[in-house]
Parts: sequence; C-alpha cells; structure tokens
Amino acid sequence: MKRNLYLKTVPVEEALEKYIDVLESGGGLTAHTEEADAYECLGRVTAGPVFAKCCSPLFNAAAMDGIAVKSADTRGASESRPLTLTLGKDYRIIDTGDPVKSPFDAVIMAEDVIELDDETVMITESVPGWQHVRPVGEDIVAGEMIVPGHHTIRPVDIGVMLASGNIKVNVFTRPRVGIIPTGTEIISPGENPSEGDIIDSNSGMFAAMVSQHGGIAHRYDIVEDDYEKIKAQIISALEENDMLVINAGSSAGTEDYTVHVLREIGQVIVHGVAMKPGKPVILAMVKGKPVIGLPGYPVSAYLAFENFAAPVIARLAGSAYNHADGAETIEATISKRMVSSLKHREYVRVKVGKVGGRFVASPLARGAGAAMSMVRADGFCVIPQSSEGFEAGQTVEVQLYKDRKEIENTLVSIGSHDMLMDLINDMMAQKFPGMNLSSTHVGSMAGLMALQRGETVIAPTHLLDEETGEYNLAYIKKIFSGEKMSLIKGVDRIQGIMVKKGNPLGITGIEDLAGARYVNRQRGAGTRVLLDYKLKQAGISADRISGYDKEVATHMAVAACVASDEIDAGMGIRPAADAMGLDFVEVGVEEYDFAIHTADLELPRIQAFIEILRSPELHKKLEETGGYGWHQSGRIVNI
Amino acid sequence: MKRNLYLKTVPVEEALEKYIDVLESGGGLTAHTEEADAYECLGRVTAGPVFAKCCSPLFNAAAMDGIAVKSADTRGASESRPLTLTLGKDYRIIDTGDPVKSPFDAVIMAEDVIELDDETVMITESVPGWQHVRPVGEDIVAGEMIVPGHHTIRPVDIGVMLASGNIKVNVFTRPRVGIIPTGTEIISPGENPSEGDIIDSNSGMFAAMVSQHGGIAHRYDIVEDDYEKIKAQIISALEENDMLVINAGSSAGTEDYTVHVLREIGQVIVHGVAMKPGKPVILAMVKGKPVIGLPGYPVSAYLAFENFAAPVIARLAGSAYNHADGAETIEATISKRMVSSLKHREYVRVKVGKVGGRFVASPLARGAGAAMSMVRADGFCVIPQSSEGFEAGQTVEVQLYKDRKEIENTLVSIGSHDMLMDLINDMMAQKFPGMNLSSTHVGSMAGLMALQRGETVIAPTHLLDEETGEYNLAYIKKIFSGEKMSLIKGVDRIQGIMVKKGNPLGITGIEDLAGARYVNRQRGAGTRVLLDYKLKQAGISADRISGYDKEVATHMAVAACVASDEIDAGMGIRPAADAMGLDFVEVGVEEYDFAIHTADLELPRIQAFIEILRSPELHKKLEETGGYGWHQSGRIVNI
Repeated sequence: MKRNLYLKTVPVEEALEKYIDVLESGGGLTAHTEEADAYECLGRVTAGPVFAKCCSPLFNAAAMDGIAVKSADTRGASESRPLTLTLGKDYRIIDTGDPVKSPFDAVIMAEDVIELDDETVMITESVPGWQHVRPVGEDIVAGEMIVPGHHTIRPVDIGVMLASGNIKVNVFTRPRVGIIPTGTEIISPGENPSEGDIIDSNSGMFAAMVSQHGGIAHRYDIVEDDYEKIKAQIISALEENDMLVINAGSSAGTEDYTVHVLREIGQVIVHGVAMKPGKPVILAMVKGKPVIGLPGYPVSAYLAFENFAAPVIARLAGSAYNHADGAETIEATISKRMVSSLKHREYVRVKVGKVGGRFVASPLARGAGAAMSMVRADGFCVIPQSSEGFEAGQTVEVQLYKDRKEIENTLVSIGSHDMLMDLINDMMAQKFPGMNLSSTHVGSMAGLMALQRGETVIAPTHLLDEETGEYNLAYIKKIFSGEKMSLIKGVDRIQGIMVKKGNPLGITGIEDLAGARYVNRQRGAGTRVLLDYKLKQAGISADRISGYDKEVATHMAVAACVASDEIDAGMGIRPAADAMGLDFVEVGVEEYDFAIHTADLELPRIQAFIEILRSPELHKKLEETGGYGWHQSGRIVNI
Repeated sequence: MKRNLYLKTVPVEEALEKYIDVLESGGGLTAHTEEADAYECLGRVTAGPVFAKCCSPLFNAAAMDGIAVKSADTRGASESRPLTLTLGKDYRIIDTGDPVKSPFDAVIMAEDVIELDDETVMITESVPGWQHVRPVGEDIVAGEMIVPGHHTIRPVDIGVMLASGNIKVNVFTRPRVGIIPTGTEIISPGENPSEGDIIDSNSGMFAAMVSQHGGIAHRYDIVEDDYEKIKAQIISALEENDMLVINAGSSAGTEDYTVHVLREIGQVIVHGVAMKPGKPVILAMVKGKPVIGLPGYPVSAYLAFENFAAPVIARLAGSAYNHADGAETIEATISKRMVSSLKHREYVRVKVGKVGGRFVASPLARGAGAAMSMVRADGFCVIPQSSEGFEAGQTVEVQLYKDRKEIENTLVSIGSHDMLMDLINDMMAQKFPGMNLSSTHVGSMAGLMALQRGETVIAPTHLLDEETGEYNLAYIKKIFSGEKMSLIKGVDRIQGIMVKKGNPLGITGIEDLAGARYVNRQRGAGTRVLLDYKLKQAGISADRISGYDKEVATHMAVAACVASDEIDAGMGIRPAADAMGLDFVEVGVEEYDFAIHTADLELPRIQAFIEILRSPELHKKLEETGGYGWHQSGRIVNI
C-alpha cells in the first residue's frame, strides 16, 4: 500500500499565515485593476479612493417649492405689517431643485405665501438670507473623497459617484479561479452512475463560492487519477487563471497524486491542517500562483475552502473585508454533549433557535460527508484544538450563517421525525415570509426531555401508552406533572413494516419478524415503543428478533437499510418505504402530535404553525403523499 | 400656481399594506417561474421544494482509507490473539468513498492494520458490522426534500442539489423593473451641465437596488416634464416590464405630472406617506402592474425605494425574505439631540462606533439631499411618528447597514475636521483589512466634550490657548483635570483666509477682513478660536467683521460660500481653498492633534491609527496635498 503520510498537521491560523507569507513574497497575491462603468460596478471593490469631480448641488438650489425673494426686501414684514411683492421684480416662482440666482437669495415656502393675483403675493414674515437654499457643494464638494479604496460598492455609492461626475471607476479585476475536479470514480452530475461512481457536486459548490467571494470561476473537466494527466491539466489551467483549486486527491490514499504533482512543479507549503472536517488540505504555490488542494468530502471541502481558498480570493479581489470575519456571533446553550479530540480544531454545524428568551444550539450530523448538515445549519461552533468538547447546557459561541432576526423568527422543534415537518417548513416560508421551522430529529422521548429542559418550543411525539393504548397524553402528564401543558394535534399516520419490493419473505405482520434480519429504531423512538407494544401483544420476546439491537435514527435510515442486501425488514412510515421503492405491510395507525407549554400557544410562530396544520393546502399535500389522516390537525388539547 | 395637494399623508405601514392588498387582488404581484441550470442558480429563489432524485452516497461506501473485511471473520481477534487475513479472500484494500460490497461489510482503518507482506495483514481487534461504512442514503435519501421553496439558493444548496441528481431547478423568474427618469432639468451623468441642470444619479442607484433585491433593471432615457411624453413612456415601458419606477415628479410642484398621468391611465392608491425623508411617494397600479413614483432627492428616493419598491420587487421575485427585515439591530446611545415632528416618521442616518464597551450613534446630516449621509452611515434610527425626538444620551435602536463586527472594528473619532481623516480612513482599509475609521465633524471643543462623555475614542482638536500661544494641551488639562490623558500628535497645517480667485479685494491678512463679507466657523471650532486670537492681537473688535455671526460647520462649507457671489472671505485650510479654486492668504501654522484617554492607547485600532500617522506613505500623500507638516505625526505626549 503506497500511501502519503502527513508529516505533521498544522494549526489552522498558523497554516494560513504561513501560506499568505509565502504567497506574498512570491507575488501570488497581486491584485489587478481595471476601469468599470459606474452603472455596472455594484459589488465591485474600489481600487483606490474615489474623489468628487464636481459639486452637488452644482449651484445654489431651492430646497422647497415656493417663491425666490431678495431677503433684504423682506425686512420688517409681519402679520400686522404684511408686504406685497410683484412677480419678476420682487419674486419668482421656484420649484425644489431650481437654481436661486442673483438678485434673489432666499426661498419662501408656497404654504407661507398668500396669493393675491397671478402677479402679486403677500408675505407676513421677514426671511434671513439663504433660507431654504441648498448652497453649491452642500452635499458633495468637488475634490472631496467620497468613497475610500478597498470598499465594496453599494447602490448609495453608485449614486454619489454619478452625482459627482464619476461615470467610470477604478476597481480591482475579479480574479479568475480555475476548479479542477479529479478522480477516476468521479462523474459529472447528470451522467448515469455505475456502481462505485461518485457525483462531482463540489465543483458547482466551489464555483458559487468563488463568485460569492468576488472571483470568476472556470470549471474544468474531470481528470482521472493519473499523475501525468493531473500535472498537464494543472499546468495548462495555470495559464488561464490567477489561482487554482484542485479537488480531491489531497488526502493520503493510494491514488492521491495531487501533492506529488504539486511538489514536482511547485512548492507545497502546507499539507494537512489540524481541523475537522477538512484535514487533508494542500496549500501550494506553482509559477507564482496560489494552488489549493481540497478534500473530497463535501463538508471538509466547504470548510477548507472557507478557511483557506476564500481569504486568498478576497486578497486577489482587493477586498478589505473577510466575509468569515463578519459572520455574526451569538452565545447559545448547547442541547447535546459534543466530544472532540485534542488533535484538531473541530467545526460542528448547529441548528439554532430562540426558546424562552435564550438561543439554543443543537448539533447536526458531524460527519465530513454530511452535506445536508450544511444545508440545515443555522451556524456552526468551533471546538478549539485545546478542548475535548462541550457539555450539554454549556454556553458556546455560534457563528451564524443567517441573520439573527431570521433565527428569532424560527420555530424550534426537537423530537420525532416526520415528512410533515418538511412540508410545513416549505409552506411557512411561503405563507409567512421571514418565518421558518427548524426541526431536529432525536425521537419522541428525547424531544419531550428537550422540551422539559427548555431547549425547544414544540416536541413532536408519537408515544403509545401500553396500558391505555392512548397516544402521547400519558407521557406528557407524567413528565410535566403540575405544569400547564397542551397538545397540538398533528396527523394520524400509518405505521408498518418495510420489506423488500415483492415482499420475498412473505411478511404479513409482527409475528413474521422472528425469521427476518431486522433493523430497529433507537430507544425512546415512538416507532420502537409501538414495536415493543405489538411484540408484547403477540407474545413474542425481543430476543427472538435478529437485529433488535441494531439501531438507526430515522424512518429514512430504516428504509435505506431495508433497501440494502443486509437487512430484510424494519418498522416505519409509508412515505419512507415509497421513497426507497419498498413494499409496506400496515401494522397500525398512530397519532403524531406536538407537545407544548400552554403559555407558548400565544407565540406568533405557533399561531402560524397551527394555521398551516389546519389549512386545506396542507391536507391536499398529505393526501398526495399518502399514509396520513388529518381530521384532528391543528386541534388544541389542554392537558 | 397650479400645484398638487397631498390630501392626507398615510403612515408607512398602512400605506404599504393598502398597496400590497390592491396589487394582490389586481394580479400585480404574480411571480413567474422558470427552469435554471443548478450551476447558475446562486442567489436565485426556489419556486418550490427541491426533492432528492437519488441517494447520497449512492452505495455503501468506505468512510476511511484501509481494508474492507467480513466483520464475522474478525470475531475473537485481540492484541494477544491477532488474526492473519489474506488479500482477496479475507480483505481488499479500499480508499475512502470506494464501495463496500458483499461479502465485505466493514472497514478497518489503515492505521490499525499491520502489514505482513503485500498479500497478508494482521489485525488485533474484532470489528462490528458496518464499521467505517457510510450506508447508502446516509446523507441524502432519494425522495427527501432537500431545499424548501421560496429559499434563496446558497453554494451549499447547489452542492446538495447536484449530489442528489438535480441538474435543473425550478426558480422564480427575476422580475423586470423599468426605471423612468423624468424632468426637464435632468441630465445624464457625463453630460456637460448648464446652469440649473441636475445630474440623474438616482437611476443608477435604483438599478443597483433592483438587482440587489433580485430583479433585472431597465433604465430608460430621461423624459422631459411633458404630460403626454411621460404618459407615452409609461405605457410603452409597461409592455416590457413587470413593474415601473418613475423618478421624480411625484411631488406637489408646478411641473409634477406623474400623479395626474397615473390617475388617468391607472389607479393611484397612495400619494404622500408620513415619512421623512421620502414623503412624496406615489403608489399606483396600471394595467395590473405596480408603478411607483419616487421623490427626486437622493435620500428620499433611497428610503422610499427601500420601504415601498423593495418589498414589491421581493414579492415579484418570490423571495420569502425581506432584506430590510433582516437588518441587524443594536442598542446605541445617541450623542446628539434629535428633534422630529409628530407629522411623520423620520429616518435619521447615523455613524456608529463602539466606545468603552457600548455602541454610540452620532446623527449625520438629516437633509433629503444629503446623499453623502447615506454613504457615510453605518445605520439608521427611526423616530416614530408618535415621538418628538430623542435626547442626547438616550438609548435608541439602530438598524445597521454593516455587520456588527465591522462596527466593532471601527475607530470612532468626533471633533474637528481635516482631510487627513479621509486619507487615514482610506489607508486603514488597505493596511488593516476589516478596520476602519468613522469620523464625525463637530468642531474641536465639541469633540473634547464628546470624549469626556465617553462617546468617542479620539477627539481631533486644534485649540489655541490665547495665553500661552500653545495648542491643545491647556484645553485638555482643563477639561480632563485629574484624568490620565494623552495627545497623539497629528499634523501641522497652514490656516489662512480663503478669497476669490485673483484676490479681487486685495486681502493680505486679518486686518483687511473689516471691509469684506465674511463667513465664520461655528463657536468652539479651532479655526474660530484662531480668528478670535488673531483679531485680539490685531486689536480689531469682532463687530467690525460683517458676517462674523454667519456660521458654517466645515472648511469645505466655508470654501463653497467664498466661491459663491455672496461672500468674499472665510478662514480655513489650504486644501479646501484649492478644491474650490480659491486663492489662499496664509495666517499661521496650527497643530491638529488627537486627544485620547491614555488607557485607550493600547487598543489595536489605535495602534493601527498611530502606525499610519507615522508611515512615510501618509507623509507622501500629505506632501502631494500641500499645506501640511508631519514632523511630529504619531508622537505620543502624555499630559
């Protein structure tokens, strides 16, 4: 096994500093400039200060609609001694913005003038010179600096540039960034995948990130894992770009050639950074230009790009301002323990919501391959290299991906998972602009615990009381005894056994599970409680179910297992089975509801949520999905 | 005088609500959709939820580099009873991302494997099934909703869309917004202005705002103030756009035709809104499309656009999220009294800085024509219609235009004005990315008062002690007696009398001012103190100077006055005279320095500031500007 070895991973800041130093002295950070049309320069970065070429206003101008007068003529005018003025001689009619010219030197507002006839007016007040006149240059004086250099141009900047005679503006040229995807197993999106193929989703993400940071992206064709081909592509792409990003092959696998190629044709400054995800980064310089090797896992790729490629692009783009620096930071209570190693700094994506006046952060899937964790994340927190992690309930700093206000308008839900939550999230964005739903899936019981700890506003739950056969009420009464609680009724949903297409084992119910390879849900999940109840009813002992101990966390995960070679059956809901093309054997109908503190029913976010639960639009969507009942949806049960 | 009359101005929210209601029922808010390439959809808004078309990973994949094994074969392996495995039969070499296929069902990391020879390895631990294997669909399950509708697409969204087989995505069509500038006195930027001409800087600002809010702008040629021409242009532009913005002619002047035209060809829902600046807004619907008349003053235009045009564009663009809603809000202490009327809601632009742990907001020029107040602003605060204003020292809510972090990296300066501050601001952005200087100009004495009240970190000052002839020290000692204060030396600068080109009155010094029409600086300004000192020395009484009571606030304002017909002379600095093409009669050299609490010298922002003051780069720029000395720049004097 021929493998690369990271000699020693470098801490994040040290790696970037070292890299920037080498690039700077090697000329790899030179920003170029060009002249841009002021109309087209939104978002561009000024290459130097912009000076006014003319004054604004260009002349002494009326600040009001009314009449222009000679202030000296108005002396002595009063209510008791009104003064009569004659058009042309003593005054002229003037609109806002009109020039005030000698002999006139002041303006009286139309409202303060008494019109006697078309050519005569009466005034009842004397006015000082320059009343209601904007003097030349009041806003902008010729020669004055109006916008500094290294400034990202906004609409108001365009306004003052045009007003001060700047129709062209000197800006930094957008750096061209080449993106080279590598890997024999990599295919382009849209191609038909064979077994073992991986879709190149990173190139598209990188291209968007390049443009977000002020560059122009050039995506190249996928290069297979071949030393010479990779080398040739890098050399030719360097001719056409100011910087390259190579993905992946930056790791220490048997076919990771990038680092060897870069060592041959240039200088590798850093290989391996003490961050997780994102360790396998290569920071290199070839022919005086930055070349960065990024890892293949999407989360690693994203974080490594943000930490290393983005600051380099920003420098090449002349931008004074690093976007990452500007991310808003809040203090939040974490809802779940996070353990990390002393070997690296770890970036954990979190969902954030406001619950009872404080921000609560719930960690999302931490794997480097969990691209959806980035889509779902509201922000991330950093576990420093010097820390072994955080305890639940601890206050941590969270860097937000969103505005704080957006977070404050988010309804937090922690508990059981159902596709219903996705549907509601989608409808909320549409019907209540600015509001949204943040749903974290930990199972029914853990959700109720989170509600008790004040980490969520609602807890979706479907827990069957084995004694009464009734859903949810008994559990809430027990856990929140003495507190004023309510239940927002959600949906009835059909639970069943997912089996392979065609049901090859002929499973017809719980009693047939003993002969199958089963996958279970985690302890505390409503689906597991239901299984246990049904097993008890059928008089089957749990240890007769092979795989009873194999636990996964969502309906979809069960479905994916059943679709694989290793598992025959698992319990869950119909839409999950449908999504994976599985057959479905009905076991029973359960009630999926939302536990909430009664006082919180008043919240606008909850009112919106209930309105959606009751809407025919949602019921129509549930009907299309199948497997649901909605006759109680949105009903409030006070417990 | 034929004038329009606002029947009654409408409060802001009421106006928008009324307008949206009418547009909605008239079909004026219909958003269209189209299919976009996933690679090209950054910043576009999803027209509906996006569902995964395939799983990610597509197959059970190795999560580590190492060997694939059959977990059952590894049972019993331990340090004391290592197990030997044979390539092909018992294991195969696997890289991260490779498929894990039957009969193999687990991965052992390369680090945990002892290589005996090329075909044999030893393991010392048994492994459970599916160790280090990412099951199919672990990240994304086919059929799952990955991105909701009405969502603005980010790079990570593009990543998961491509990974889940979505190479096309259904998005809202960008609405086309026509911009029609009107006015006989209006000229395009770059045209040579005649007297009374006004440069159309709003169209360019609007176009940039349209694109910021997700629309596509079409700028039309300027239409003169002619009822029929305006009407014809509106009707033809409506054919080509989803919405129109007309600027200006929305006011009540004699030549403001817009409202009449819109009444003839459509429906005017609101004319005149109770906001300042921005009152003369017209909200109309013509042929089922939104048409908005905006006022001509740039600040009015901007605020009216943000409050009325932006939400309509956002609706047409399908965006769930109103940018204005998302602006970050902070609590800040205001440094200056702000009085407002009960007739309207007023928007006041402010500079914001962090001083001693709290945010301080200083109001900028409040005029509707003060475009530079928008460029300089860090945010704005709203004086509600029900309020007569705020007192200095009161805590107010400020909506930020910038990130909070950017504000925190801003060095606040309140006091005397000099172009030096512009130069330093420009250099700071370049040399210390992320840092900047916020400079508010109130005169030397008012700056020292602000420093005393804790509203600024530094106070630029040039106050001459009439007794000692020494600059600054005496004043600081007196005002901050007992406190540890320092002075950062700034520049020597030449003060003088600005006179018209050619010096027609032959002014040679202070003693010649008695015969001239003078313009003075405000009380407490260093320049005024210098004048008083010089007058005293010359034995001239202030009441012999005609215009001694006429006060303006900056050197540039003095220069602009002297350039006008009404004023002959004023005191100030040479660059101001140069900028306005005036002659300059030297009066003396003064010291422009920065007062600071000694403890604050440690702040990184101050260290950066001092470094720039000492830099040869700055001195070169001062030399080019002329009128400065820098032999003490950046020296610290402890008082």
